[in-house]
Amino acid sequence: MGLVSTGFTMSLDGFIAGRDDDVGPLFNWYDSGDTPYTYPNGMQIKPSAISAQVIDDQRISTGAIVTGRRLFDITQGWGGRHPIDVPIFVVTHTMPQDWGHPEAPFTFVTDGIESAIEQAQAVAGDKTVAVAGPNVAQQVIKAGLMDEIAIELVGVLLGQGIRFFEYLGMEPIMLERTSVIVAPDVTHLRYRIIK
Amino acid sequence: MGLVSTGFTMSLDGFIAGRDDDVGPLFNWYDSGDTPYTYPNGMQIKPSAISAQVIDDQRISTGAIVTGRRLFDITQGWGGRHPIDVPIFVVTHTMPQDWGHPEAPFTFVTDGIESAIEQAQAVAGDKTVAVAGPNVAQQVIKAGLMDEIAIELVGVLLGQGIRFFEYLGMEPIMLERTSVIVAPDVTHLRYRIIK
Repeated sequence: MGLVSTGFTMSLDGFIAGRDDDVGPLFNWYDSGDTPYTYPNGMQIKPSAISAQVIDDQRISTGAIVTGRRLFDITQGWGGRHPIDVPIFVVTHTMPQDWGHPEAPFTFVTDGIESAIEQAQAVAGDKTVAVAGPNVAQQVIKAGLMDEIAIELVGVLLGQGIRFFEYLGMEPIMLERTSVIVAPDVTHLRYRIIK
Repeated sequence: MGLVSTGFTMSLDGFIAGRDDDVGPLFNWYDSGDTPYTYPNGMQIKPSAISAQVIDDQRISTGAIVTGRRLFDITQGWGGRHPIDVPIFVVTHTMPQDWGHPEAPFTFVTDGIESAIEQAQAVAGDKTVAVAGPNVAQQVIKAGLMDEIAIELVGVLLGQGIRFFEYLGMEPIMLERTSVIVAPDVTHLRYRIIK
């Protein structure tokens, strides 16, 4: 079975979005390079060559996505097609009322994150299940189901906003750093959770 | 004039100490290596060779320290001799009543951080003024007086504790990453504040 992984672009002071979900300069590295990159859904970015490789490696290794309802709503369900274009499992309390893309590979999971991870892993096979959205990611970490955390660390102090890591309120979790990739505008860090 | 710099060992989730100021596994990297290192005050540690070099470079480049009263109290004034053994300026509202080391190069500054930085820079000359303690460091950042932030990033999620970066509550501050040094148990990151 593949890994369960989460990844965020995070400011040095730990924020993944500013106030009002504005990401401010956080994602500058997506477009500050010289390497055009097109996601399967057609979204185009222009990171550095190093970051483009990191993005492509992540995309290729991902077999399914588990996300929370908030991120789904903010992105309006990515218009029915997530950039990475793999089956998506949306953890939610209630089914959306007016989901306009019933043909898209979106599954709404109302019986909790364990179920969502299990369903995603069944689809992903040996590939990675990527967990998106800070609340769901923290729930998966707390449940002991997360294997990996990838942080794209950006040199900015946002000063306020939404933190990736709120108080988990649990015993320390030890990590093993498995990769450091130094790109021009971001440091790509990857950690395995030691279980 | 030298730089004004601050540095912290920080968990991936942004904490520089756990509950009750317990640092837990944060400073494992100080003693998990094979390179004995002795500070000028006699304190002995055993980091990796790479980290020992980073520590020594920081020590040599430091000409004075500005610290807050809380850190001074927690460490009991480092027994009158800070490991780095340079003049120390303690920002405080009130003078300590029973300071037992009047001969030590400690100056108690009651007229604010700007004054403390100015006095420290006068002593440090071309060397760096190191700012210790998260509250004072944040005040210096907010006052626009900080030049550099060094983070020794450790692969652990502490889950709770004292954050280095509380909500600064200001506009984003852009940083330029100037150095990434990958040591076995810590990633040494250095940023310049873009002014």
